[in-house]
Amino acid sequence: MPGLASETIGIWVAAGSRDESTETAGSTHFLEHMLFKGTATKDAKTIAAAFDRTGGDSNAITAKELTCYYSRCLVTDLADITSLLVDMVSNSNLDAEEFERERGVIIEELAMSADDPGDVLFDDFDELIFGDHPLARPVGATKDQIRVLGHHTLLEHHSTTYVPPRLVIAAAGGATHDEVLRMVEDALAEAGVGSAAGAHTWDSVAPSGSSAVNASGATGRGAREVPTFHSGRSHTAKDTEQLGILLGCEGLEEGHPDRFVYSVLLTMLGGGMSSRLFQSVREERGLAYAVNCVASQFTDFGTFGIYAGCTPENGQAVIDLALAEWDRLAQETPSRSELDAIVSQLSGSMVLGLESSAARMNRLARSEIFGIALEAPLDLIERVRSVTAEQVTTMAGDLLSRPKSLSLVGPQTDVVLR
Amino acid sequence: MPGLASETIGIWVAAGSRDESTETAGSTHFLEHMLFKGTATKDAKTIAAAFDRTGGDSNAITAKELTCYYSRCLVTDLADITSLLVDMVSNSNLDAEEFERERGVIIEELAMSADDPGDVLFDDFDELIFGDHPLARPVGATKDQIRVLGHHTLLEHHSTTYVPPRLVIAAAGGATHDEVLRMVEDALAEAGVGSAAGAHTWDSVAPSGSSAVNASGATGRGAREVPTFHSGRSHTAKDTEQLGILLGCEGLEEGHPDRFVYSVLLTMLGGGMSSRLFQSVREERGLAYAVNCVASQFTDFGTFGIYAGCTPENGQAVIDLALAEWDRLAQETPSRSELDAIVSQLSGSMVLGLESSAARMNRLARSEIFGIALEAPLDLIERVRSVTAEQVTTMAGDLLSRPKSLSLVGPQTDVVLR
Repeated sequence: MPGLASETIGIWVAAGSRDESTETAGSTHFLEHMLFKGTATKDAKTIAAAFDRTGGDSNAITAKELTCYYSRCLVTDLADITSLLVDMVSNSNLDAEEFERERGVIIEELAMSADDPGDVLFDDFDELIFGDHPLARPVGATKDQIRVLGHHTLLEHHSTTYVPPRLVIAAAGGATHDEVLRMVEDALAEAGVGSAAGAHTWDSVAPSGSSAVNASGATGRGAREVPTFHSGRSHTAKDTEQLGILLGCEGLEEGHPDRFVYSVLLTMLGGGMSSRLFQSVREERGLAYAVNCVASQFTDFGTFGIYAGCTPENGQAVIDLALAEWDRLAQETPSRSELDAIVSQLSGSMVLGLESSAARMNRLARSEIFGIALEAPLDLIERVRSVTAEQVTTMAGDLLSRPKSLSLVGPQTDVVLR
Repeated sequence: MPGLASETIGIWVAAGSRDESTETAGSTHFLEHMLFKGTATKDAKTIAAAFDRTGGDSNAITAKELTCYYSRCLVTDLADITSLLVDMVSNSNLDAEEFERERGVIIEELAMSADDPGDVLFDDFDELIFGDHPLARPVGATKDQIRVLGHHTLLEHHSTTYVPPRLVIAAAGGATHDEVLRMVEDALAEAGVGSAAGAHTWDSVAPSGSSAVNASGATGRGAREVPTFHSGRSHTAKDTEQLGILLGCEGLEEGHPDRFVYSVLLTMLGGGMSSRLFQSVREERGLAYAVNCVASQFTDFGTFGIYAGCTPENGQAVIDLALAEWDRLAQETPSRSELDAIVSQLSGSMVLGLESSAARMNRLARSEIFGIALEAPLDLIERVRSVTAEQVTTMAGDLLSRPKSLSLVGPQTDVVLR
């Protein structure tokens, strides 16, 4: 991204809570915290100060299939930040005393999440639909599991997950690909964990000025069990004013060939203030403030859903309207002008997204990790343009015919999917 | 911002909930919703579709002293968006039937906010410290006030607040100042509400490629009553796992001459993962996940505070530690190296912020509305660099000597400021 003063760099580990067993539950998220707690040459305070002094946005995130340590900083700070991130991933102390102290912080983080009705709703939905599968567990596990997690379990989890080819470094911003590559190689050499000339082979791709470096050019993990969708209804009692509603079915996994049709469908049904759900539920009837489509995408599975929050008395009406709009999309082919508006919306959004180094770093890493070819923006827009109204209607019908689940958080209620 | 494909434009109204009486409470926020509900030539759906089809980020926000309608879109869509925003602000229908329907949406929005423990905490604190002053009221008012708000009240509030010189248009991005000015003038002419050659005179400033247009070059409102700080303790019972804690005192108002010292103080005490509060409360003792300084700034008043969320058993320890760190900053002059790190952090953050058209549009508008000279980034960095450790210590002591308040949200607790 020539001319940009900043760069976003991320070190990704293709491991998440899904790769844990019941015994190791919470380890991946705990590890993410521990990497900030010290390396062979830096204590926790030194690490925090090194990130903060750049004035950048530095943090980490753990999800069900991925962990990412990232920083958006000035290009002039990039060598230092790269060295720091590589050191954290390669030479973490995983100190036992820090581990005990961090247990308290993580329990606080889980308590904070438990007080957020939206967090609870999305966790409940996954628990409901994934049954015994590891994807059913919340990313951070439960407070009880964190209370008993052993230090040795963490060490073992680290030694099996933080290894090539699971590691991917991606960057986007003002630095050139060669500059980033050199910084990464220097950082690896400094951390004593190999280099381009050493134990690993490094592939590099540089589409549209972005950079990705991936040990051995693949992120293959051991075979994972493919989940199956469980239908049902869940309700978590919470003394809230609103009822949180999440209903959905199996959707499309990451990189699915029909993903452009899916994008159009998600946007048309529930992707903005002109979407059908927003217009029907909020604008025409004033029944909710927030109503939209949601989708999560994993390597081998996806979920499609509709989220809404409303006072409990409006709950059944909102659910019925949401299903009616879904059904209408499955029955009546949308007009050319509605489809054109969605294509315009998605295209504009893609072009605007190109201005964010963080978004581009993300896109690059996900492409590498999920093995999806990285396409030029104009090609992506062309793919969206080629979606037909009939494809959207067919997909809406296909999704609607699938088993569905409903999760609710809030006051006692008898609302159902019908 | 030459070379950028996008532009962020905002139409600001220098009016907020503070400008309401008990009778008109909630009108400003309600008006913000109503402006999306139709103009003389466009219905609500047309407005929503016109924003959505750009793929941009378009929305509005109401605060206690300001309302803003904004859009980040491609420069190629800017003329259309400018015309749309000007039409909304100038020719809103404020239709009575739409008003009744939107009442339900707003009540849902207030219910959503009531279910967010953080929102409740910050509203409680303002209610506690501002006493009978209008700043004590939450921006959206209460559900009961919204239930009885009359359509005529809204119309009257609109006619007295949405007028020059309260209106400011600010923009930043890939378009030139002249291009933006022409688009605004065209939009004003189209909306039939004046032009640069018409009833208003328009000042324009174009620092660092940003654009601001302000009717009559000032946003003077009628005299407002200056608030006074009330000390006390409030507790809202909520069945949450964490106790939300907000303690604070009177701080510095917008544009205060010592604002650069204040920035250093806020950052050093609670502005990042290396801050004193974060290190003491979270890193050394593992007592909380989130702990940081907060500040709100109004024309004539500011508040300084410390926020933390933790399990109730940790509450008193967290409060005591927070006050101890505040006191330590007031007692011991920070080292040169700690000060240098903060200067680096603030400088880096400022330079990174320059890459965001939204941040620059905001900065420009606030400068215009609050009458604060817009300074070049390098000058701002120079001002931060000139802050001395002694100034930080003196200010910390001054703040600490002021009457304080404590707000709590969560389970019953006997924690206090001591």
